[in-house]
Amino acid sequence: MPAKPQTTTVPKASHVTRVDAELESLHGRSTRSERDKLALTAHILADEGHFGGLAGQLTARFGQNHFLTLPLGIGFDEAKASDILVVDDDLNVVEGHGIPNPATRFHLWIYRHKPNVHSIVHTHPPATSALSVIGQPLIIAHMDMCMFQDQCAYLPDWPGLPIGDEEGVVISSALGDCKTILLANHGLITAGSSIEEAAYLAFFFERAAALQLAASASGTIRPVDPKKAREAGDFLLKPKIVEMTFEYLARKIERGASAPSASQ
Amino acid sequence: MPAKPQTTTVPKASHVTRVDAELESLHGRSTRSERDKLALTAHILADEGHFGGLAGQLTARFGQNHFLTLPLGIGFDEAKASDILVVDDDLNVVEGHGIPNPATRFHLWIYRHKPNVHSIVHTHPPATSALSVIGQPLIIAHMDMCMFQDQCAYLPDWPGLPIGDEEGVVISSALGDCKTILLANHGLITAGSSIEEAAYLAFFFERAAALQLAASASGTIRPVDPKKAREAGDFLLKPKIVEMTFEYLARKIERGASAPSASQ
Amino acid sequence: MPAKPQTTTVPKASHVTRVDAELESLHGRSTRSERDKLALTAHILADEGHFGGLAGQLTARFGQNHFLTLPLGIGFDEAKASDILVVDDDLNVVEGHGIPNPATRFHLWIYRHKPNVHSIVHTHPPATSALSVIGQPLIIAHMDMCMFQDQCAYLPDWPGLPIGDEEGVVISSALGDCKTILLANHGLITAGSSIEEAAYLAFFFERAAALQLAASASGTIRPVDPKKAREAGDFLLKPKIVEMTFEYLARKIERGASAPSASQ
Amino acid sequence: MPAKPQTTTVPKASHVTRVDAELESLHGRSTRSERDKLALTAHILADEGHFGGLAGQLTARFGQNHFLTLPLGIGFDEAKASDILVVDDDLNVVEGHGIPNPATRFHLWIYRHKPNVHSIVHTHPPATSALSVIGQPLIIAHMDMCMFQDQCAYLPDWPGLPIGDEEGVVISSALGDCKTILLANHGLITAGSSIEEAAYLAFFFERAAALQLAASASGTIRPVDPKKAREAGDFLLKPKIVEMTFEYLARKIERGASAPSASQ
Repeated sequence: MPAKPQTTTVPKASHVTRVDAELESLHGRSTRSERDKLALTAHILADEGHFGGLAGQLTARFGQNHFLTLPLGIGFDEAKASDILVVDDDLNVVEGHGIPNPATRFHLWIYRHKPNVHSIVHTHPPATSALSVIGQPLIIAHMDMCMFQDQCAYLPDWPGLPIGDEEGVVISSALGDCKTILLANHGLITAGSSIEEAAYLAFFFERAAALQLAASASGTIRPVDPKKAREAGDFLLKPKIVEMTFEYLARKIERGASAPSASQ
Repeated sequence: MPAKPQTTTVPKASHVTRVDAELESLHGRSTRSERDKLALTAHILADEGHFGGLAGQLTARFGQNHFLTLPLGIGFDEAKASDILVVDDDLNVVEGHGIPNPATRFHLWIYRHKPNVHSIVHTHPPATSALSVIGQPLIIAHMDMCMFQDQCAYLPDWPGLPIGDEEGVVISSALGDCKTILLANHGLITAGSSIEEAAYLAFFFERAAALQLAASASGTIRPVDPKKAREAGDFLLKPKIVEMTFEYLARKIERGASAPSASQ
Repeated sequence: MPAKPQTTTVPKASHVTRVDAELESLHGRSTRSERDKLALTAHILADEGHFGGLAGQLTARFGQNHFLTLPLGIGFDEAKASDILVVDDDLNVVEGHGIPNPATRFHLWIYRHKPNVHSIVHTHPPATSALSVIGQPLIIAHMDMCMFQDQCAYLPDWPGLPIGDEEGVVISSALGDCKTILLANHGLITAGSSIEEAAYLAFFFERAAALQLAASASGTIRPVDPKKAREAGDFLLKPKIVEMTFEYLARKIERGASAPSASQ
Repeated sequence: MPAKPQTTTVPKASHVTRVDAELESLHGRSTRSERDKLALTAHILADEGHFGGLAGQLTARFGQNHFLTLPLGIGFDEAKASDILVVDDDLNVVEGHGIPNPATRFHLWIYRHKPNVHSIVHTHPPATSALSVIGQPLIIAHMDMCMFQDQCAYLPDWPGLPIGDEEGVVISSALGDCKTILLANHGLITAGSSIEEAAYLAFFFERAAALQLAASASGTIRPVDPKKAREAGDFLLKPKIVEMTFEYLARKIERGASAPSASQ
């Protein structure tokens, strides 16, 4: 005999506790190597339109004062784990063939000043670029944007071709304690505690920008209550949620034609 | 010798009667299983851009107080019938591996209050999300939107991360007697009398939203006469039309690379 | 020794004469059957986003008071020549399986009143639908829109679900002597002297609508001089240009995965 | 023991010098033939949506007063190196089958007046066409647009169907000393010192137009400082950067289904 349908409500806090426990019960962290994760990030972002010419860089810490990055000239959509360079903190190549994108220099300044940052994504995807051109930072107005509540800084002036140290100083200072920043006339940076988080934030940043752009072309954006946004943002930045999302996106790449042969 | 071309008009009512009879003469209902139809719905909506990260859920009644749904972390574009969970009316897993999306809780409240609802789709596709952010409900202004005449409710306030019972109470109450609802700052819900209808409504909801968004960015929308819209909407919601459309969309998935292996 | 570069101009009329002669020297008309051309048209327009659910019909004259059309429920992207029905001028099926789309009825009224029309396309593609919703007819403002100069009528009122004779009377009357019409709150019709021309006009109509929509969202459209538009339009409607374009689009379909198996 | 992180800045000029030296150290120019490069350009631009019907032409100098171009009727997405015609400076075919697009005539006028121009692209891609319709030249407002600083002319009046000499005179005069021009109510022209540069400029022109169009639909564009734009533009037009970008785009074509069989 079926149970009587529930009609009384349970306090939200107990649902939250239950969800946390259920999430923890799920399978553990991925065993992918850092190089594989960086190559997958390249493909995930290429599939989202983050890459066109040679602009954009992905980096991750790799031992003491060393970093992983792709060589200049290799596209995100063709990246293989075996292409990835190891560079030191002056961009000298320690391992691998080619040269890093010279604009990777500003990543170094972020790593110097933010020990908790493990990985950085910098891209110029279309909608983010459009917001950057009209000088309009993200407005948190949708559940899927809530991971950016209190986490999206803004640099209102373009310092010019970012291959010098000055640009690194300006950008790392403007980032402050946020995980992401919109760079006027330029693009986005995400600074994550893992490659997965940096990739996840970049993926949703461009989607948030596209949503904001489409909405503001047709009406007036109504932001959500910051307190509710913060609650949702905390949920969306839980490591398990970030990892499950990254794994889903990685499987999508692995199914498709653009999958990187991770250890060729 | 050819007949003389017709130049007089026949009353529309007799054409409608003829069309009804012709539709009834066509092949009967699909013999697909509920799990196959739910997996196909996932792929149909993925192909339309309804899915990105982990947001969105599909459910259907399955026996007394039980429901079919996908596990959290499985993307719409990779869903297989064999992935589908059976959960009870407190989201405990009765059959299958994984956990349901905790936000599926609000589906339960709709099923409790609307016995005629057999299947629910909830997604955050781009154009619907943009309308949700500017607080602009659907305006019935095109023949292809007429199935939403008198069938699209609107919830103007976002209740926050929808994993509690409170959100379920608010959402099911706002839905009222409509088959669909736009949730401000959030997305869409369709509540169908079959999986096919819930899928069909979600498919056309996002297309309607995209049309409205594009139109309102360039001009002023001119709604159609509600009476004519209702007549067309009744036609577009005929079960045979819904089923033929679902079958067409299902064949498209089955031809493509993203087809679910229905009974793996 | 190279000739001295030309620096004086030759009158445009002599270039036009030369181009006409060169075009005539090219290979002759396609030997494709009418059914193959209609199935190819379905795929060409599907690739351009003209099709979604079940809306849209393609027809062509086929002998005395008979017509070719696809059965209701077969998508443009899956159409095969062998699916095509022969119907009489009251939509009774003379050859083939299934029923025609009941909205094909208004095609009959156009064929009755315009003996030069050999083929009709009716679709609801996204940009055309958006213009139809804001009641904005085509503005000839780009070289690629010039085939619509003096060739695009407008029906400002939606007569409702177009399955009756009344809608056929209204639509065929509004079309007048034009090759195309924008139907408010509805979509487009093209009426060509060949299947190739009807397909070609539908292909460029939606592209013209998309251009107009994008342009009017960001600025004020500046129409071109009607006299120059007419000259370019005459060139763009030359049968050889229409046929070469159709053949190019047909080859694209035949190379791709969605090619119709023309005589299965 | 790791080196102490760098905290002082090095003057930008020394970074620029270092980058220049590193770029020069990379592998040399491509060994592709001119015909292969032109066919690849066709595919690169087709993939970016530059081609639809028969509009658009690609040319390159080929010996004394001769030029390479595709025959009218061959689409960019199907072009093979072996399709390419050699024409003289009155568009007579010297080698190959078919006729050139008659609108190629205005290319000849540019070649006559600008000896440094080696290759010309003319296309009507969607965003460029939309800007051309609202008469809005490029505004340099993003790092990825900086190659157009002082390099984008504008022709405010459409001279009509461009198959005569008059149009060639008008267009080549309006181009002046710029590498690119926006033609009102028409499209874009790029005039490069190599096929790679002409392709690269066309690729980024349409991307710049799309960015500008999206931005101006939602806000007010804030241009960048012309001095910084010029510095970045000089970097982005370095032959090595142009060639690396072209090679990346060419590899993308070669990996995909639409790759031209270069010497069939």
